[in-house]
Amino acid sequence: MTTKLYCMGESGNAYKAALALELGGLEWEPVYVDFFGGETRTPEFRKINVMGEVPVLVDGDTTLTQSGVMQMYITEKTGKFGGKTPEEQREVMRWVFWDNHKLSSQVGMARFLMNFLPEDKRPAEVIAFTQGRLKAAYASLNDHLEGRDWIVGDAITNADLSCCGYLFYPEPFGFERKDWPHIDRWLSNIENTPGWKHPYDLMPGSPADRA
Amino acid sequence: MTTKLYCMGESGNAYKAALALELGGLEWEPVYVDFFGGETRTPEFRKINVMGEVPVLVDGDTTLTQSGVMQMYITEKTGKFGGKTPEEQREVMRWVFWDNHKLSSQVGMARFLMNFLPEDKRPAEVIAFTQGRLKAAYASLNDHLEGRDWIVGDAITNADLSCCGYLFYPEPFGFERKDWPHIDRWLSNIENTPGWKHPYDLMPGSPADRA
Repeated sequence: MTTKLYCMGESGNAYKAALALELGGLEWEPVYVDFFGGETRTPEFRKINVMGEVPVLVDGDTTLTQSGVMQMYITEKTGKFGGKTPEEQREVMRWVFWDNHKLSSQVGMARFLMNFLPEDKRPAEVIAFTQGRLKAAYASLNDHLEGRDWIVGDAITNADLSCCGYLFYPEPFGFERKDWPHIDRWLSNIENTPGWKHPYDLMPGSPADRA
Repeated sequence: MTTKLYCMGESGNAYKAALALELGGLEWEPVYVDFFGGETRTPEFRKINVMGEVPVLVDGDTTLTQSGVMQMYITEKTGKFGGKTPEEQREVMRWVFWDNHKLSSQVGMARFLMNFLPEDKRPAEVIAFTQGRLKAAYASLNDHLEGRDWIVGDAITNADLSCCGYLFYPEPFGFERKDWPHIDRWLSNIENTPGWKHPYDLMPGSPADRA
């Protein structure tokens, strides 16, 4: 049975799972979730996910939420993206957790507040504060990538698929690739991976649809 | 060789690892990090952890950061806290990721801003915004715990050890146990686990030391 990913193009967290499914060579299909129309707040959706979040992955009897768990599951199924040694495996998980804790959680929020809220509802102090914290996160990642093609080892892993989650989006959220040369080069490495697709090409839904 | 945990009592993220080490029955000792004196921003500390964060776990040749990775490592060593079946294992990881993404990352920040910054430097709008998001997170956890003693299955797991990370602290950060009856009961289950200790008893350093 084809794996289903409940998602929308705007979600960088969904993109992390979608990109792992796609580059992992699994058979999968996206199921569009009308997040902006309130679908994740309905009782029906809460039955699938008490956390009320996108993405949700359904593979036969298995239902998963949290992109990090989906990436671990895709690694179990394909043997890909998990790291080659126990040391690499831990290092991959370290960056996946760091991304969830410090990078994607904050980028996703900054981008939402700056682009998807009505202009008069955008909390300026929160946006400035979040961007300050994000600058520290970009610096950690940029420093780590100096002299490296990939975050861990010599191939693409879940660490890369997680940390890049929000960094290909065109909407302004205070991140300019040219300001972070090692991140910029690393993102190009991901874009040049055979089968790579931009989030708006990999999943249904984009701001253009609502324009 | 005794496992070392670089930590301080104020860090709920360090507490997650310390509590797993303690309840897992491993031989370990805390190494105090003078976070409030700026130690994590020194080049020496950055050499241990480019992310500049506490905790850091050192076990012989293995150095780990990110509490979620430490918990996975302690589970590997002890066979404890990881869940009993593949389904439980995924469910445990789901809640650990959710905690890192939605709960501890925000509780830790709210508590820091409200208690450890000078009064005239506390960003009121950021605090109010974060508390609003936290209310949604507490509600998800409280709803899930209705009718359950533990987050996953019938015993304490890393899901519990992660989500409780900041919830025993006495400093005000907008969380009152009595407002969330299922969370309150679950925290009592953790407190009643043989060997349980409060963060300020398990690790060196507390606001009282700096008073």
